[in-house]
Amino acid sequence: MNSFGSIYRLTSFGESHGPAVGGVIDGIPANQLFSLDALQAELDARRPGSDKNVSQRREPDKLVLLSGYLPVEGQPSMIRSLGTPIGFYVANSNQRSEDYEELRHVYRPNHADLTYDAKYGVRDWRGGGRASGRETIARVVYGAFAKQILARVGISVSARVTEIGGCSDRSKFDEMIAEARAAGDSLGGIVAGNIVGLPAGLGEPTFGKLQQMLASAMLSIGAVHGFDYGDGFPLASMRGTQAADEMDEDGFLSNHCGGILGGISTGQPIPFRVAFKPTPSISAPLRTVDDQHQPTTLQTKGRHDPCIALRGAVVVSAMAAATILDALLLSSITLFPQE
Amino acid sequence: MNSFGSIYRLTSFGESHGPAVGGVIDGIPANQLFSLDALQAELDARRPGSDKNVSQRREPDKLVLLSGYLPVEGQPSMIRSLGTPIGFYVANSNQRSEDYEELRHVYRPNHADLTYDAKYGVRDWRGGGRASGRETIARVVYGAFAKQILARVGISVSARVTEIGGCSDRSKFDEMIAEARAAGDSLGGIVAGNIVGLPAGLGEPTFGKLQQMLASAMLSIGAVHGFDYGDGFPLASMRGTQAADEMDEDGFLSNHCGGILGGISTGQPIPFRVAFKPTPSISAPLRTVDDQHQPTTLQTKGRHDPCIALRGAVVVSAMAAATILDALLLSSITLFPQE
Amino acid sequence: MNSFGSIYRLTSFGESHGPAVGGVIDGIPANQLFSLDALQAELDARRPGSDKNVSQRREPDKLVLLSGYLPVEGQPSMIRSLGTPIGFYVANSNQRSEDYEELRHVYRPNHADLTYDAKYGVRDWRGGGRASGRETIARVVYGAFAKQILARVGISVSARVTEIGGCSDRSKFDEMIAEARAAGDSLGGIVAGNIVGLPAGLGEPTFGKLQQMLASAMLSIGAVHGFDYGDGFPLASMRGTQAADEMDEDGFLSNHCGGILGGISTGQPIPFRVAFKPTPSISAPLRTVDDQHQPTTLQTKGRHDPCIALRGAVVVSAMAAATILDALLLSSITLFPQE
Amino acid sequence: MNSFGSIYRLTSFGESHGPAVGGVIDGIPANQLFSLDALQAELDARRPGSDKNVSQRREPDKLVLLSGYLPVEGQPSMIRSLGTPIGFYVANSNQRSEDYEELRHVYRPNHADLTYDAKYGVRDWRGGGRASGRETIARVVYGAFAKQILARVGISVSARVTEIGGCSDRSKFDEMIAEARAAGDSLGGIVAGNIVGLPAGLGEPTFGKLQQMLASAMLSIGAVHGFDYGDGFPLASMRGTQAADEMDEDGFLSNHCGGILGGISTGQPIPFRVAFKPTPSISAPLRTVDDQHQPTTLQTKGRHDPCIALRGAVVVSAMAAATILDALLLSSITLFPQE
Repeated sequence: MNSFGSIYRLTSFGESHGPAVGGVIDGIPANQLFSLDALQAELDARRPGSDKNVSQRREPDKLVLLSGYLPVEGQPSMIRSLGTPIGFYVANSNQRSEDYEELRHVYRPNHADLTYDAKYGVRDWRGGGRASGRETIARVVYGAFAKQILARVGISVSARVTEIGGCSDRSKFDEMIAEARAAGDSLGGIVAGNIVGLPAGLGEPTFGKLQQMLASAMLSIGAVHGFDYGDGFPLASMRGTQAADEMDEDGFLSNHCGGILGGISTGQPIPFRVAFKPTPSISAPLRTVDDQHQPTTLQTKGRHDPCIALRGAVVVSAMAAATILDALLLSSITLFPQE
Repeated sequence: MNSFGSIYRLTSFGESHGPAVGGVIDGIPANQLFSLDALQAELDARRPGSDKNVSQRREPDKLVLLSGYLPVEGQPSMIRSLGTPIGFYVANSNQRSEDYEELRHVYRPNHADLTYDAKYGVRDWRGGGRASGRETIARVVYGAFAKQILARVGISVSARVTEIGGCSDRSKFDEMIAEARAAGDSLGGIVAGNIVGLPAGLGEPTFGKLQQMLASAMLSIGAVHGFDYGDGFPLASMRGTQAADEMDEDGFLSNHCGGILGGISTGQPIPFRVAFKPTPSISAPLRTVDDQHQPTTLQTKGRHDPCIALRGAVVVSAMAAATILDALLLSSITLFPQE
Repeated sequence: MNSFGSIYRLTSFGESHGPAVGGVIDGIPANQLFSLDALQAELDARRPGSDKNVSQRREPDKLVLLSGYLPVEGQPSMIRSLGTPIGFYVANSNQRSEDYEELRHVYRPNHADLTYDAKYGVRDWRGGGRASGRETIARVVYGAFAKQILARVGISVSARVTEIGGCSDRSKFDEMIAEARAAGDSLGGIVAGNIVGLPAGLGEPTFGKLQQMLASAMLSIGAVHGFDYGDGFPLASMRGTQAADEMDEDGFLSNHCGGILGGISTGQPIPFRVAFKPTPSISAPLRTVDDQHQPTTLQTKGRHDPCIALRGAVVVSAMAAATILDALLLSSITLFPQE
Repeated sequence: MNSFGSIYRLTSFGESHGPAVGGVIDGIPANQLFSLDALQAELDARRPGSDKNVSQRREPDKLVLLSGYLPVEGQPSMIRSLGTPIGFYVANSNQRSEDYEELRHVYRPNHADLTYDAKYGVRDWRGGGRASGRETIARVVYGAFAKQILARVGISVSARVTEIGGCSDRSKFDEMIAEARAAGDSLGGIVAGNIVGLPAGLGEPTFGKLQQMLASAMLSIGAVHGFDYGDGFPLASMRGTQAADEMDEDGFLSNHCGGILGGISTGQPIPFRVAFKPTPSISAPLRTVDDQHQPTTLQTKGRHDPCIALRGAVVVSAMAAATILDALLLSSITLFPQE
């Protein structure tokens, strides 16, 4: 249960305070050129410390590829895919496990400590373990390969934070985050994504609907609590006459449906939204229990983003790009000659 | 791509105007007793005509089981599962294909006609085909078996319509639907589900998170445009101090997180919401194109629900129950003795 | 665990003495024409009673299709695929459960009675249940659709019995079977298959090797105890110089490797062999136990083939054809444009 | 298509002349102790140069674990599993790509060079690439973890070479191999495996039969051309009376069926055989073609085992152990309480 995707498929591994996080990417088409710099740039965008508003844990997050490519002669920053799986990892460094010593037996509120113990009977208390944000490194690499392939066939996938703490005025974001950080508090946010350039005909009609694949991708990201697409939740308040996407000889006249009908792409853009909860690690004191279910109080220390959604945008666009490439490769199956 | 679930798994088939819709359910534990009447009752609740507010297409929707059980001597309405797959179908009757003759070459707005043609180069124009609401029959059967198993271990799954056309006052629903029907229009709605009695420890930490499984289940339902759980989209507007679920020796003091942390159940209830778009089949005239991309105008005839969300509630609870049973069976794998 | 194949996929159901056996076939390319007569002919070839040497249980085994097709106007024996799943069944009739009454609590030697009880704690004692030869009906239908598609792209799959009871002189088969039947005994046999017309490049290099897919298909058939391909087991006795398949400008000079190198097809034919054990149901008295592990003696009654391999050939060619179609559809994924 | 197993699952990566070979193992039960020395010992047994009869390419093959474990305090050679995936690799060193320069455009007979080019349009000509024997490193690690788990529940899996070049007198093996090496030739061989201590009830009745899982595992190993189990191919020459496994109150009186009935384990040992072809890399000159299909002649240089089957035994036991653990974990699903 650590794999995602059908043809274009990631199998990921790694805890935050073990040796490394990484994965295996299967299904990359053979004989494609990739820029190593562009791959690393996606990782850098995800990295804590890449922006003054995000966590101060500074790690180089240098991508190491172990397989699946040939070097390109004379172009040290380019590789050629072999069609075989790409194994990769990013080493964990700059670990400050001492920050976590007091958490050895205490369950942090709104963290996975309690549930991991319930499921496994053991957990890596030295950090978030598998539930750490570092797990998203594998997703970002997965998406970064996909983006380079999609770009060549004219498909772009983007995502940005459109709302934090209920405010959609981007000019106020810096101030709001500074205030939350100073207060030892955190903010939720909304990431809006968009997929442009997709041909009609991708996705499956029953299970494997395109919106289902996207929802599965988004809700697999930690801290995400909601997903909608097209006009989304507000559609539930509309009438059929308002929501109708009429067509004429030039195509669709609107896009309430969000570029998907019957689970299959129409060729219009696919806008979607993803809701992130506030960072659960806050320095305000919270009532909690230890692993003997005895009550205690906890103030989270360590370095944490006051608004996860900010870094979440990179992860959202990565997972969306990977999902779309997967749908594209799956759809090639239907290219079988017809009678 | 017509299967859902890992261990407790549905493979479904059927178009609205072919001979039947049905499926195969795999992974039902052996030696369980099931009430045939309770299975049929779920189908009856889904049926058009079961309520004055829903479509007038009246079909008996009689469930036929083909395999996977032994009769129980002396109890004609009970069966005993063999552990082998349950094959089943419901015949399509009362088909009025003449309603559809004019749709042979015309794409209905906000329907899957255009996208099926783009994907397959052929479609069953005699009705909604695979995209018809009749496809949900297989889902309801899938959920009905699951509900009987879950009930025995103290887990209940429920869903009801909490909002239509932006109104959450249930006393006004009948009137609103009557008005929309009279106007040849339709209404969107929201279905709220709840899962109670789940033990802690279900779900997977990375891919296969419990919320991911539920989102995938919900967005696989036609007409659904959004999913959230716990405090959902409003969490994006909250601060960490507001969203914190503190604990004391008696357990959780709140449930903003919606009963799932790190992808794994906490043991608290799991509330979630599902947004349905308005029925796209409305009798108001709409501009559209035919399969030669020539513009035309269409008024949908036939029998259609003015608010899909009403029947959607049965499907939502079915898919949620099936998903939870699947997670429960998957979790039994972790019962391996520990050292 | 009742599904086979990745893209071209069968999910099967059915016990011998339940209402029906059948399945769902997913992944049939859209807009293909199929002859219903040719589908039925494959089932007829599998049927007991189709040959004087096989079991006398006579059933019509009439194929009923439930979904996934459009009728072809003016051609009642032809259908057009929609790209959606084909649901189908064959009713069980002519059941003589009274033949089985004494087996309610007794384990037949070399049958699955004991192991089903160990696994499930319940079994359908009224016949072979899920382990009956009737389970192969779904496989034959799965293969029959595949054969019609493969034939159009110039690929043929064949299988025939080349050896029974250690004798490879086909002119003696009738006599040997008559003798075994008279003696209340049975015979093992070998089925040899061949796949001709396959392009180079099908199959996966590591897991999903073409020979692995074929081996998995063959060993999933009841009563099969062995599989080899190319020069097979005798290769283990050869030297490298003997086994080398040299090439010149006209292609391969021999085919010891059996048309597969590194898991991927070379374009040469793929010959393979499948070993069937003797029918376990024999009328000679055998020592066995009941479900309380008390010793008893059993003489199998009922209608049974003295040599399963005879009917096995149809099943072998069906599973091979389905496997090859699956590999062909999977390989279309690699048609992504290269740089 | 680089994954094997359902619950206990390997996803592997790596070419022989890229940076590393490795994989991700998913499904290891949590809170299990493992000896690192025992893991490394399995890799050492697989290594070229571990025996005077095998290839002289000497590499340390040091296992590096990247995730999925906690160190055990005070026991540096022990680890405790977290239940999360184990990422691992073994670096490729001692590469002599110059041995391969002349192979850049030439297809080695009975190697995968031609088929990789047909499938992918590119290949790693610097060695066997993904088809190299080094790919088996990931399998051996996969099996090594499984063996430690199985040992604790009393299940053992073994495999040894019982025949090379048609000779089953083990005292002659050294001499035969020396002779083949001196002659620039190679030998095929047979590996016999045995699984002891398995409980009754593992495996699935239709697809996912225990013998199917084993056949799939064995035919996924490069150079393997055949698999049988129990009395195997010779069963095809037997009569039902000879092949019958009678039972009395003490259990089975024979084991012709090889410990599996109806796809499910009986509790008896499971003996099986695997046929390996002779090493295709021989120094005798062979006619072949280059990637322009022009004829040429090739004498393979480099370091190669004269009999792959010798090292194959380690891989056979690894894949068998992993398969059995997977079946064991899958079977735990059926432990659901019965009525």
